[in-house]
Amino acid sequence: MSALRRGFGGGGVIQCTLPGKLRQGAEPVLHLAKSDDAYWMQRALEQAMAAIGRSHPNPTVGCVIVKEGRLIASGATEVYGGRHAERVAIESVADRSQLRGATLYATLEPCSHTGRQPPCADLVASCGFARCIAAVGDPNPLVAGRGLRRLRETGLEVQTGVLGPEAMAWHLPFLFWQIAGRALIAAKWAQTLDGQLAYDDGRSQWISGEESRAYTHWLRQKYDAILVGVGTVLADQPALTVRSCVEPHHRQPIRLVFDPGARLLSCPEETWQGVLERTFSSQTPTLLMVRESAVAAARREPLPARRLERIEHLVSLPDELSPSECLRAALADPSLSARAGRPIHSVMVEGGPRLISTLAEEGMIDMTHIFTAPILGGGTRFRLQFPAPYGVGVRLHPMAHARLGEDLLVEYLHPSTQKLLEQLDGGRPVREPVAVSEAA
Amino acid sequence: MSALRRGFGGGGVIQCTLPGKLRQGAEPVLHLAKSDDAYWMQRALEQAMAAIGRSHPNPTVGCVIVKEGRLIASGATEVYGGRHAERVAIESVADRSQLRGATLYATLEPCSHTGRQPPCADLVASCGFARCIAAVGDPNPLVAGRGLRRLRETGLEVQTGVLGPEAMAWHLPFLFWQIAGRALIAAKWAQTLDGQLAYDDGRSQWISGEESRAYTHWLRQKYDAILVGVGTVLADQPALTVRSCVEPHHRQPIRLVFDPGARLLSCPEETWQGVLERTFSSQTPTLLMVRESAVAAARREPLPARRLERIEHLVSLPDELSPSECLRAALADPSLSARAGRPIHSVMVEGGPRLISTLAEEGMIDMTHIFTAPILGGGTRFRLQFPAPYGVGVRLHPMAHARLGEDLLVEYLHPSTQKLLEQLDGGRPVREPVAVSEAA
Repeated sequence: MSALRRGFGGGGVIQCTLPGKLRQGAEPVLHLAKSDDAYWMQRALEQAMAAIGRSHPNPTVGCVIVKEGRLIASGATEVYGGRHAERVAIESVADRSQLRGATLYATLEPCSHTGRQPPCADLVASCGFARCIAAVGDPNPLVAGRGLRRLRETGLEVQTGVLGPEAMAWHLPFLFWQIAGRALIAAKWAQTLDGQLAYDDGRSQWISGEESRAYTHWLRQKYDAILVGVGTVLADQPALTVRSCVEPHHRQPIRLVFDPGARLLSCPEETWQGVLERTFSSQTPTLLMVRESAVAAARREPLPARRLERIEHLVSLPDELSPSECLRAALADPSLSARAGRPIHSVMVEGGPRLISTLAEEGMIDMTHIFTAPILGGGTRFRLQFPAPYGVGVRLHPMAHARLGEDLLVEYLHPSTQKLLEQLDGGRPVREPVAVSEAA
Repeated sequence: MSALRRGFGGGGVIQCTLPGKLRQGAEPVLHLAKSDDAYWMQRALEQAMAAIGRSHPNPTVGCVIVKEGRLIASGATEVYGGRHAERVAIESVADRSQLRGATLYATLEPCSHTGRQPPCADLVASCGFARCIAAVGDPNPLVAGRGLRRLRETGLEVQTGVLGPEAMAWHLPFLFWQIAGRALIAAKWAQTLDGQLAYDDGRSQWISGEESRAYTHWLRQKYDAILVGVGTVLADQPALTVRSCVEPHHRQPIRLVFDPGARLLSCPEETWQGVLERTFSSQTPTLLMVRESAVAAARREPLPARRLERIEHLVSLPDELSPSECLRAALADPSLSARAGRPIHSVMVEGGPRLISTLAEEGMIDMTHIFTAPILGGGTRFRLQFPAPYGVGVRLHPMAHARLGEDLLVEYLHPSTQKLLEQLDGGRPVREPVAVSEAA
């Protein structure tokens, strides 16, 4: 995936993710003419974005139908089990004869198999469209070019790759799950210019600006779960919920707290109360991930034992694995999804520096959203730190950058993620079907 | 000064500063129509950029003359004592009657006083132009709106502010000297994503990419001197010359090496030879800045004393001042310019982390060019570090950002620099004349 066009990023068209009053500072999207397919694909992407987090584990696809330079219908994938974007758009047109000769734009290849819904490709083929433009092919082996082939066979002009990199960035969690067969790990952090994730007094909340925070809240809907280290929880007692961003808020992410040593169970009472109130609030489940031995030790002490009883969702981590191996195993364990009450196909790690350093060292960060504030911090305590091979470091692949208020957002792909996505260019199936083959 | 338009930066139109083969990755400049004054002002700015470093201490002004949508003349300020940009452009037109009704675009207000050249405003007024557009007013108290007033009185339509912030960024060293009455200190460094200026093994050369290095070499022509700390000199033995960037190379910067403790004089012989060969090469003078007491001590030891004799330009720093006070005093001392053989009105600091930290701590960095490579370094040794007030840090003002190959360039102004430039908006004289009043 090459660098994205200006104004786009992993969250979609960045401007659209900010509440009105914060948009002024945001960079304008590339100027596109209505005669340009990319103009309409952007509209389709905006449809998808307006439905962010709604259709999981189905990808959040957007669709618009255009005739003679005029938008005649639009739609996005409904909640799981409901209609796909193409069907929503098509069914919104009362007089189907209007669709004859029109162009359908979809952010992902229309599906060709029967899941909870009949195949979209058949429906699209039956409407008399002149053209069907898909931004990116579906790597799902049950679709994988079949949807487009089906359409081509019925005489439609079919094209892919329009805003292809942008749509790949939007559908990244879905595509990654399909291709790699495991949950995408995206790391998000805000830092000073010189790489501090918090000031030396431990405060981190006010490093990034309002626009960056709004964009982060918006992104939380895109990922199935948010992961934080216990250090961040103790320092900030973050709520990690979706708020302060454009409506509607389709879902709250599952919260995962990585606390191998069960530090939370013996922290000061005031902190514990704050954590219960905010990080373990009732809006959405929070899973506490603790090592088996630390759980056993906690059960032997009155205070930790009492607190342990308040934890509804406990994930115990095997003692014999390293922290990163623990995490990998926990995320791969199907029981995690069961406990969370939803499939977990993507995780956004929101700190702190220690957890992110551990993941970076192990090459476990598949992509990053990094917000850099215009601040020289000068401190030393809360920075990334891991023994990278000297003179080398971990080289990432820049995907998008945008100014958000006074901050700069840069999104990078890990080289291995970049490689996976390059396989998509051919539109060929890239691996055997994965468990959730329904998703499409 | 608000954020600059896309594609612009402190070095001008960024794309133009890169050799042809490196331009592909550079971001395109905002698309402007020929009917737009900004289109022609950009051409004027490009004229100035092609003359980078040539006219010092006069500002490097660019000028184009346009009639009926067609470029009929262009020019840039010649070497000191030579013609100003407006005169170069006007005199390039053989048949002066062609100028009647044309529009003159200049990146800075035409001068109104007689220095080494007669006033440009008089010349411009005599040509029958219909319009004169200046990007930014000249803060020189001898000009300060008089040039434009003179033109208005003769019936020309006069306008300022077209690509104003972009021209201010270009003329920053000159404007700053005029307004603040002291040398501008710009800090330039390349860092990893997590803020390392070198890997833990001390290597820094390969953090930034080829495009960033070309842009840096180009920038070296813009500043009168390059300042580096002795740590950088010992580690890298940098040449600090202008090369690997677009031709012509109008000048090599004076090199200043800050070595208060005279470490250079007792370093290993091999390093010393490398430093002599590269950092003290004959292309341009290098001034070694050492504390008085360290010079005295060096004279008492055979090896340092012998090496001291090889140093042609020694600047001795007072013992009683702090490192940053020393530097401030040395830069303000008129004898520095005399020894360097040219006025030093701007300095680009190219590291290392210790020198930059010292300057940042003292609020002495007026602006920054920061190149961030897509690398997570993970190390700890070569980062900025200074005891900033916790929970605050030094907040800068983002001016421009651009992707350069795989790196991201961000340019920031110190809040006090930002404030100084805001005074320019009114076009009023902002202070009493400074010594080099000729410059304009």
